[in-house]
Amino acid sequence: MRPSLEDLIDNALARHVSGRVVWVALSGGLDSSLLLSVAAPLARQRGVDLRAIHVNHDLQAAASDFERRCRELCDSLAVSLVVAPVTVSPAGQGIEAAARDARYQAFSRHLSAGDRLWLAQHADDQAETLLLATLRGSGVRGLAGMPVVRQWRGIAVERPWLGLARSELAREAARRGVAWCEDPTNAEVRFDRNYLRHRVLAPLRQRWPGAAEALARSAGYLQEADELLGELAEIDLAEAGGDPGRLRLSTLRGLTSSRRRLLIRHALKRLGLPMPPAARLVELERQLTTAAADRLPLLVWAGGEGRLWRDHLYLLAPQSPIDLSWQATWDGISPLGTPWGHYRCVLQPPRAVATTSLRVGLRQGGERLCLAGRGRRDLKRLLQEAGIPPWQRDRLPLVWCGDELVAVLGVASAQGWCQTR
Amino acid sequence: MRPSLEDLIDNALARHVSGRVVWVALSGGLDSSLLLSVAAPLARQRGVDLRAIHVNHDLQAAASDFERRCRELCDSLAVSLVVAPVTVSPAGQGIEAAARDARYQAFSRHLSAGDRLWLAQHADDQAETLLLATLRGSGVRGLAGMPVVRQWRGIAVERPWLGLARSELAREAARRGVAWCEDPTNAEVRFDRNYLRHRVLAPLRQRWPGAAEALARSAGYLQEADELLGELAEIDLAEAGGDPGRLRLSTLRGLTSSRRRLLIRHALKRLGLPMPPAARLVELERQLTTAAADRLPLLVWAGGEGRLWRDHLYLLAPQSPIDLSWQATWDGISPLGTPWGHYRCVLQPPRAVATTSLRVGLRQGGERLCLAGRGRRDLKRLLQEAGIPPWQRDRLPLVWCGDELVAVLGVASAQGWCQTR
Repeated sequence: MRPSLEDLIDNALARHVSGRVVWVALSGGLDSSLLLSVAAPLARQRGVDLRAIHVNHDLQAAASDFERRCRELCDSLAVSLVVAPVTVSPAGQGIEAAARDARYQAFSRHLSAGDRLWLAQHADDQAETLLLATLRGSGVRGLAGMPVVRQWRGIAVERPWLGLARSELAREAARRGVAWCEDPTNAEVRFDRNYLRHRVLAPLRQRWPGAAEALARSAGYLQEADELLGELAEIDLAEAGGDPGRLRLSTLRGLTSSRRRLLIRHALKRLGLPMPPAARLVELERQLTTAAADRLPLLVWAGGEGRLWRDHLYLLAPQSPIDLSWQATWDGISPLGTPWGHYRCVLQPPRAVATTSLRVGLRQGGERLCLAGRGRRDLKRLLQEAGIPPWQRDRLPLVWCGDELVAVLGVASAQGWCQTR
Repeated sequence: MRPSLEDLIDNALARHVSGRVVWVALSGGLDSSLLLSVAAPLARQRGVDLRAIHVNHDLQAAASDFERRCRELCDSLAVSLVVAPVTVSPAGQGIEAAARDARYQAFSRHLSAGDRLWLAQHADDQAETLLLATLRGSGVRGLAGMPVVRQWRGIAVERPWLGLARSELAREAARRGVAWCEDPTNAEVRFDRNYLRHRVLAPLRQRWPGAAEALARSAGYLQEADELLGELAEIDLAEAGGDPGRLRLSTLRGLTSSRRRLLIRHALKRLGLPMPPAARLVELERQLTTAAADRLPLLVWAGGEGRLWRDHLYLLAPQSPIDLSWQATWDGISPLGTPWGHYRCVLQPPRAVATTSLRVGLRQGGERLCLAGRGRRDLKRLLQEAGIPPWQRDRLPLVWCGDELVAVLGVASAQGWCQTR
């Protein structure tokens, strides 16, 4: 028994939390016009605050027609509509990716955390996404395509019709007399997606009528597999110490090669760092299993780097060069701004000392810190003892009170001084 | 830097174990003729025993042409050839699947454990396999397609050219002047694979020349993912008690839904049982999380069933009906044959008793067994105590010596009697 369009929408509405808004992303085309037409009366019955948002990319002559259609449809359904005009600037990326970015920017301007955003994408869209990913030779994550539900900046982005074929939506739209606008660019095969639709998926569907739905089903299994791989990576991450930026080498070395790569990719994702190209990842993995532990090899790729130090793999963003002569004054209380980020901590002086005169600078070499019960100690040795990796040592803010080094932020304080976060 | 055809073959030959045979599966078509032509001189250099095997399916008029071509090619390369005629009987399956079965039967007749079998399949074949799997809505395992290496009855089935495009092989065959036979059925789009090749992959490649290799790369990632999912399932299986036929319910209930299904599918695969259809698996999973632990619900699918008993999920083959009046005589030493399988154990009597008179039968109710130190006990209660699931109790062989029950095979023996495996 296949669920009807109404069933799918009503099930989605049943999960609604009152006080929040369901937004339908309305292009004026077939899919989203039908989605809004089906959803509006059901939402009214359930008392759900349903609105539409139309993003006008102004990319084609027909853009104003689309906007007008959206206004007419929303008027006829008594649904309130937000029209968000955006400027698409395809600098460094394709026009399709740039339009998508602009669209999401518009969504983030008009939607609040806790709202839901409904996209009318369907099985044919999903099938195209999967095929495009195979044409890039993608792995599971790429092939998994679009999720039915995804959290994005506190907004639930949902695709209630992702399992339905375009042909079914077209049939239903015709049956219900829903008015919609044909996108004139849909026929242009210069876009990859349209080429795929007209030249590849059309002959596929001619022989296998359920092709798009089958591909979308595969995408669903791949999504599940991707989540499961994430769970496996989390097990291994815990085993490797739990910090994605600092993975225990002995754990990494004990894993199979593919599982080691999975863990590294997972850690990079958790850190928000870009993935290295496949060949760089293999090279990183090779160094991990062969390099002596403290040889500090460095593998760099666009946006990330891997370092080996003291039996751990460190994954980090490339270190920007720093000006060793940088200095600042500080009151010991306000967030301390440095060229490489903010430090939020409070430094309390011994009772007798006024903190108005704190100066912050970087390590030049030869500094000594007077520790409670240990006397004056060489800073270099202290940092080694504290396990601070070499590449972090030069950018630790040193705090001076007059000529006396009183703290190394995040690491140690001089006798009588107290650091709290 | 792409490896040459020779590199790929020579790398594969370098891993060779002396005394074993490398067989090239030779159809007489382009791919396998080229594979044999490249491999034969390299094998000779390395002293590897390389032979060819041609399976004649006798499915088409051209079959004898193919066989003749294979003989000519092997003569010219001085490679010994085995021709294996087979009969393809497509009872209950498609002609392609039946031909494959017949082929593998022929391989198993002529190859020995430890041998290697080389198949000339390439990236386009792999891409077709992946697409066919998406058209069935398959999951990761199905989409992963053909592996580069697979163990089959002790034989390593290898595909050294799985990453290469058909177009590259065609170019190389022409350049080297390799003679081969065109399969006249290749053009017939009534076969799914040919339709896909001519109507779907051709326009795909027209726009994306590297399409087949990209798809084959995706298939490789999916294979890796499938192996990783197997590792995750093994972690969970260990947690669930380690026996794939008997999974601890508390473990199953603690897993996410997709991970629970992964574990069940993995356990079924380990047991060699067929998978339930997706909807049955969801139903099984639902019963697991909702049913009271000892309600013994039963979920049956073609070739398998799941039962809940004493906080465990039992996965098993459907139980064949048994004849409760079955009886046999037994000497206590020979393997005991029953209609549902063989028992290999030895039953030793107390010193004073002759064992020629042992009789084996099934439980009728009311039996009692005299246990050392415990006296005569009700058999039903003993089986409950021993944790024998109800559906196994009726097919346990009971051994009688005269009128005395002296053993329940695999469970318990009467005082003075001793069971060993």
